[in-house]
Amino acid sequence: MSKTMDINCDIGEGFGIYSLGNDEFILPWVTSANIACGFHAGDPTLMHKTIKQCIQHGTAIGAHPGLPDRVGFGRRAMDLSATEVYDIILYQIGALAAMTRAEGASLRHVKPHGALYHMAESDATMASTIVRAVADYDKSITIVGMSGGRLVDAAEQLGLNALHEVFADRVYLPNGTLASRKQPYALISDPEQAAQQALDLATDGTVNTTHSERIRLRVDTICIHGDQPNAPKIAKRIHQKLTKANISLKH
Amino acid sequence: MSKTMDINCDIGEGFGIYSLGNDEFILPWVTSANIACGFHAGDPTLMHKTIKQCIQHGTAIGAHPGLPDRVGFGRRAMDLSATEVYDIILYQIGALAAMTRAEGASLRHVKPHGALYHMAESDATMASTIVRAVADYDKSITIVGMSGGRLVDAAEQLGLNALHEVFADRVYLPNGTLASRKQPYALISDPEQAAQQALDLATDGTVNTTHSERIRLRVDTICIHGDQPNAPKIAKRIHQKLTKANISLKH
Amino acid sequence: MSKTMDINCDIGEGFGIYSLGNDEFILPWVTSANIACGFHAGDPTLMHKTIKQCIQHGTAIGAHPGLPDRVGFGRRAMDLSATEVYDIILYQIGALAAMTRAEGASLRHVKPHGALYHMAESDATMASTIVRAVADYDKSITIVGMSGGRLVDAAEQLGLNALHEVFADRVYLPNGTLASRKQPYALISDPEQAAQQALDLATDGTVNTTHSERIRLRVDTICIHGDQPNAPKIAKRIHQKLTKANISLKH
Amino acid sequence: MSKTMDINCDIGEGFGIYSLGNDEFILPWVTSANIACGFHAGDPTLMHKTIKQCIQHGTAIGAHPGLPDRVGFGRRAMDLSATEVYDIILYQIGALAAMTRAEGASLRHVKPHGALYHMAESDATMASTIVRAVADYDKSITIVGMSGGRLVDAAEQLGLNALHEVFADRVYLPNGTLASRKQPYALISDPEQAAQQALDLATDGTVNTTHSERIRLRVDTICIHGDQPNAPKIAKRIHQKLTKANISLKH
Repeated sequence: MSKTMDINCDIGEGFGIYSLGNDEFILPWVTSANIACGFHAGDPTLMHKTIKQCIQHGTAIGAHPGLPDRVGFGRRAMDLSATEVYDIILYQIGALAAMTRAEGASLRHVKPHGALYHMAESDATMASTIVRAVADYDKSITIVGMSGGRLVDAAEQLGLNALHEVFADRVYLPNGTLASRKQPYALISDPEQAAQQALDLATDGTVNTTHSERIRLRVDTICIHGDQPNAPKIAKRIHQKLTKANISLKH
Repeated sequence: MSKTMDINCDIGEGFGIYSLGNDEFILPWVTSANIACGFHAGDPTLMHKTIKQCIQHGTAIGAHPGLPDRVGFGRRAMDLSATEVYDIILYQIGALAAMTRAEGASLRHVKPHGALYHMAESDATMASTIVRAVADYDKSITIVGMSGGRLVDAAEQLGLNALHEVFADRVYLPNGTLASRKQPYALISDPEQAAQQALDLATDGTVNTTHSERIRLRVDTICIHGDQPNAPKIAKRIHQKLTKANISLKH
Repeated sequence: MSKTMDINCDIGEGFGIYSLGNDEFILPWVTSANIACGFHAGDPTLMHKTIKQCIQHGTAIGAHPGLPDRVGFGRRAMDLSATEVYDIILYQIGALAAMTRAEGASLRHVKPHGALYHMAESDATMASTIVRAVADYDKSITIVGMSGGRLVDAAEQLGLNALHEVFADRVYLPNGTLASRKQPYALISDPEQAAQQALDLATDGTVNTTHSERIRLRVDTICIHGDQPNAPKIAKRIHQKLTKANISLKH
Repeated sequence: MSKTMDINCDIGEGFGIYSLGNDEFILPWVTSANIACGFHAGDPTLMHKTIKQCIQHGTAIGAHPGLPDRVGFGRRAMDLSATEVYDIILYQIGALAAMTRAEGASLRHVKPHGALYHMAESDATMASTIVRAVADYDKSITIVGMSGGRLVDAAEQLGLNALHEVFADRVYLPNGTLASRKQPYALISDPEQAAQQALDLATDGTVNTTHSERIRLRVDTICIHGDQPNAPKIAKRIHQKLTKANISLKH
């Protein structure tokens, strides 16, 4: 019996006239898409177009809701109340789900974006607020969160399916969290190195850390970042390397 | 057997710290609410709160999608393509529907707001674009549009339920359209006069026009405007007058 | 020789169709206006109209720049870099100053709004960043900040004129800061009580605190909040009480 | 005595994380920059950075105000009143001018963007409204508009300096207007062809039209579009060709 693995990537993060990332070159190689929902990035027409692309590629469609901060791309922390967070999650997943439904497909997962993801992973109340918003809408939707983190924990407590996520192109600290993006070494841009990290994670859940110490993580899905220049090459190389190792990529 | 009539009103048109209209004083007297969806007015938290109020009052919940022009309150014409209109409709009704669903209720109708309503009523392609967006999402949703106009026509052609709408507090022209808001006489602010117009419309579909000529319209729902100062009094007076005439108000 | 005092109030905090506060009822009684600049509140047309009103009343025109968070009215903390803060200050004061100049008047002061004010008062770097933005634009502009706080301190260090501000309608803590708005007793809504606090502050700079301990503050300008229901009455009562005590109100 | 020519280009049209155009590759070859002011594109931090780049290159700094429609990049017509247009012009040029002043430079010109430019060129009232907003701010600022069009006409009537603009990379109709962007042939993407058109225009003001008829235009500045892929090559080739023909490029 062959092993399977899910590869997720943020998709549809352009806006109006602006494009970001390399969606058409990445979609062939990933199995799950996290689609921006119009708050930190994305607009209704881009969201719709992206959903159609995902359907063509058989990619699982997920919502990637963010903070209402377009100029900061949802990466600047904002002091929102739990009520506000609940409501912006519900709003954004509803908007995307309507488009998905109009195309005869359905929403498979939700993964918060940027500062919202960090708020959830660093605050159990925020994590459960986000998961409750999803659950109140549709309990069959899967939550994607940091492996072993607060989002997946909240999801499991509320009876939702959860995917523990790890990163192919980010450097890990010994405690299982990621080195800050502000560090020059935080991003892995070499496709071969990223593919090797993905293969190790997919095979036995182990990954090197900044102190060369090897740690083990639960791995349900591997994230790659679509906005780094090498992203299409990384996505393709991971696909090749995992496939060659008899790990079939599927959501 | 008693006659019934639906009374609709735009609700939830505040934004952030700002309030507009007199929602709490109007909701007891109307049977259908058109809730702003965050583009021309409304924000996720207000939308959610408004849905809860509607559920408490037994008011039918409708989406009131608008143009992406908050500073102009969705009243300034914008040159959007059919694709853009389709997508902003789907986006907004999805956002509201998700909140409605989270509260265990469902979306009963869609009525475009302001310039979007006028674009639809003056352009059959726009009207059918809007109706298609609703139909592609859920064919069981009702379309509310100008009595005898292009929105209800498009809805009927696409097999959706349609409500022909008339206005209690606006002055009619002999051709069945409304006198422009820019005219000083366009708005009826006297509760008794508005209630009489509502009663006539509910009884036999007739209404006075600017040339004293009386015209007849199809009447499925009567709209009152929530943002004029007298709105709560008008809503209450219409309720009293129609109820007294043995017309029961229900959606 | 008679004593003088400046009374400042946030003005022009509506947006599009929305109004907020009671500008026309407050402007006759205050001497300085802090005008919202289109980020947390205000829009170009309202800003322009408000400047004209200030000129009519002889009110000093000030910029009241805020965070780019309209739905949160600039009251939610956001993690902006110093560069971002510098640039949004310069942008907003420039926009308002252009309108002021077009009307033949000039910008007298700058007072940051909401969370931006708090960021400045709790972080000396933020305070000096804001003051630098103002100074780089025009060193003759006055900075308004918390009495004895970081904004006025930064202004004085950079050679700008500074006004130490106190509050007529807020309750003080013994350390000279304000009781949080979340406390039910934080706001003084009784006009007589607010006027007495203003008079004491204007006379000898003393004010009662939550522990009945009396403290002394430097007082160059007294702020009243325009958005509480009693604001016009408070503004008028302060004007009367100070005038009667031979304190002439002027900026 | 050698002839001189001004070459202008829209610059700073990115937003937040998004970039657009090829500013750093175009700035060395143009003499005037039209900088987006935060409505259709641009944000305070990008505006500031772009001003610094212009100062480094000795490029004349101009404001490129647009409609408040970021998702449509200011290219969708919107039904704004003259008052609204006046106020958004004043707001945007003030914001940019403040940053320019903070860097010790000054605003040389204003050129409206996209749909705002078209509104002005097709409606003399709009054109004079825009020019009035500039004039009321600072009569020494130059207006850039279509050669022989309504903007330059309004500027001349109000006593402002005006630059008649022609396009190096757009195809002309026999009546002196541009072929619509929707036509496949509207854009000239070949650097040599664009440079030849620029040289002809700079030399004697003549240009070929869609009907091979040659027309003559007044030429004070030549516009190139920064957002087409070939823009840097076109800018460089124009620079070379005009310089070789003894036309020195300067604003």
